[in-house]
Amino acid sequence: MTNNGQNAVPQSDSRPETAGAFLRACRRQPASYTPVWLMRQAGRYMSEYRALRAKHSMLEMINTPELAAEVTLQPIDKFGFDAAIIFSDILPPLMGMGLDLEFVEGLGPRIKNPVLTEKDVERLATPPPEESMSGTLEAVRLVTAELSTRNVPLIGFAGAPFTLASYAIEGGGTKIYSKVKSLMYAAPDTWDRLMNKLVDVQCAYMLAQVDAGASALQLFDSWAGSALGVQDYVRYVKPYNTRLLGRLTEAGVPLINFSTGTAPYIEEVAACGGDVIGVDWRMPIDWFREKVGYDKAVQGNLDPISLLGTWEHLKSQIDDILDRAAGRPGHIFNLGHGILPQTPVDNVKRLADYVRERTQGK
Amino acid sequence: MTNNGQNAVPQSDSRPETAGAFLRACRRQPASYTPVWLMRQAGRYMSEYRALRAKHSMLEMINTPELAAEVTLQPIDKFGFDAAIIFSDILPPLMGMGLDLEFVEGLGPRIKNPVLTEKDVERLATPPPEESMSGTLEAVRLVTAELSTRNVPLIGFAGAPFTLASYAIEGGGTKIYSKVKSLMYAAPDTWDRLMNKLVDVQCAYMLAQVDAGASALQLFDSWAGSALGVQDYVRYVKPYNTRLLGRLTEAGVPLINFSTGTAPYIEEVAACGGDVIGVDWRMPIDWFREKVGYDKAVQGNLDPISLLGTWEHLKSQIDDILDRAAGRPGHIFNLGHGILPQTPVDNVKRLADYVRERTQGK
Repeated sequence: MTNNGQNAVPQSDSRPETAGAFLRACRRQPASYTPVWLMRQAGRYMSEYRALRAKHSMLEMINTPELAAEVTLQPIDKFGFDAAIIFSDILPPLMGMGLDLEFVEGLGPRIKNPVLTEKDVERLATPPPEESMSGTLEAVRLVTAELSTRNVPLIGFAGAPFTLASYAIEGGGTKIYSKVKSLMYAAPDTWDRLMNKLVDVQCAYMLAQVDAGASALQLFDSWAGSALGVQDYVRYVKPYNTRLLGRLTEAGVPLINFSTGTAPYIEEVAACGGDVIGVDWRMPIDWFREKVGYDKAVQGNLDPISLLGTWEHLKSQIDDILDRAAGRPGHIFNLGHGILPQTPVDNVKRLADYVRERTQGK
Repeated sequence: MTNNGQNAVPQSDSRPETAGAFLRACRRQPASYTPVWLMRQAGRYMSEYRALRAKHSMLEMINTPELAAEVTLQPIDKFGFDAAIIFSDILPPLMGMGLDLEFVEGLGPRIKNPVLTEKDVERLATPPPEESMSGTLEAVRLVTAELSTRNVPLIGFAGAPFTLASYAIEGGGTKIYSKVKSLMYAAPDTWDRLMNKLVDVQCAYMLAQVDAGASALQLFDSWAGSALGVQDYVRYVKPYNTRLLGRLTEAGVPLINFSTGTAPYIEEVAACGGDVIGVDWRMPIDWFREKVGYDKAVQGNLDPISLLGTWEHLKSQIDDILDRAAGRPGHIFNLGHGILPQTPVDNVKRLADYVRERTQGK
């Protein structure tokens, strides 16, 4: 089913170190500099992206392989990031399951037929990703062909079951997660069935991305931390993330387990699995590293807001993270959450250049 | 300036223990049961409140002493809570400072002339609370007169400088705090001046509430945790909360230092001061207690969502908190954040009764 990580992208020790800085860091192998990429690096802050987006809806961008491939490559060519991440969104797999998803301008995603009952869960389809996510998988193929000449690996990704279940149940964004929690508490069997379906769908989708050429996988559990205390996380999320990440190891590529707002119980997050733990900006990176254990690599943890200010302040934040991460391989420089649309491009360029310059040969 | 805690409300050891359960718990003295009150206990989930609110705007409710007193007492008479909290909001002190505050139905508070520059900060007035907050102070006097016959203490409160500064700068709610952080980072002197003004205004206001009869004070830093990582908290918030809580000790009443989303660095929050640390629901209460130190009492930590579900689930959550808090005086049962408007009144009644029944004589 998968290619065991034998993709077109360099990741063996026989290639020059510089080409594999990202994949080496994922495996906690020494690299010739600290690799850097930014979550949502293909996005609204780039004029090249906005020019395309002005002509196409969000779903058109995602489902047209040539467009998705083009915006995936834009930040690689402009900033020289050490990894690309396929342009998509965490929600489209819900469409294949039968949910009516729309991206409403200014409001974000809306699901018109949210999941509320046992019957709604039963009705959810589990189509093969080659069918339901064919556009993104084709984009992965296009991008990896392009990236192989640039020696840059591609990260595939998917939303974690809890975060997807939250969207599916709430039908959109929420501050209090009342419907999700009500279902979890009042109908634990229904919750279990929903989460298992999501594990199956997301597992197949992520493995298919590796088959199509992705060299690493990132699981986004963006909402778990803002919704759940540790006891709920351990009971209602951890078993499913553990199963999913466990199954994904068969792909033979590095797995990045990302969440936000989970600092107080990051040990439980790390215990779910993954070679790399993605961490937010609420605690220093050395604090996170100690909590997750030195058998994991860590990705993060710059506050995206730092990119909005002066270079002087931004540099001090980058320096602090690099100082705290120094002396131990296995750090991938990134933000603690997605880059903001209002981010000045110059700051992104300086960040990418500075991280490489400062860490080169160290 | 203050009455050193010699209010009409019982708090000395010579009174029957039951009358002083809340104040005794604040001081980590054994009480005959675990006291309970709920943040936003005077609010939209009560039909008695909604009946009044239908006839008056939010600011009318706050500024009319008789109305504020009436809704403050409603949950005391209905549920027998062990403490009342004066009905108000954290934002009205900003009006006295010159900010044009409006509560927009369905949207929440909006400030039409937000604070953006050094000049805006200079322009902020610091009127005496007797002038700018006379309605609330009169409500405190009315309520404490009523409460003295019921042997229930009144909690006065105010917003912490960071949370108020965030509203003042952003002009309303925010998810990313970009304007607050930009000002903090780019203009630390302006930030310092703004925070010092807020410390002065809030200190005078809180002391005036004690003068008017309040038996305890709660500082609400509702936004610090969702906005700030530990390093920013220590640099941009901690010095001001420390100064404010330090000055408030002259009032001679228990001080409750409340925040949410601060679990990863709750030690730093506790180090600012306060006799009682208010904690959210993201970690178990014994975990919080160990982190903040056993020389502090703890208030919390039920997830407000638990009140929306079945009694069976709610009871299991209450039991878990009481089990974990057992065997050590200094626990005030409360939510981890404000009660939700859609909360069924029956669950509130059962909660209040159950906490008292289960802990009576233990």
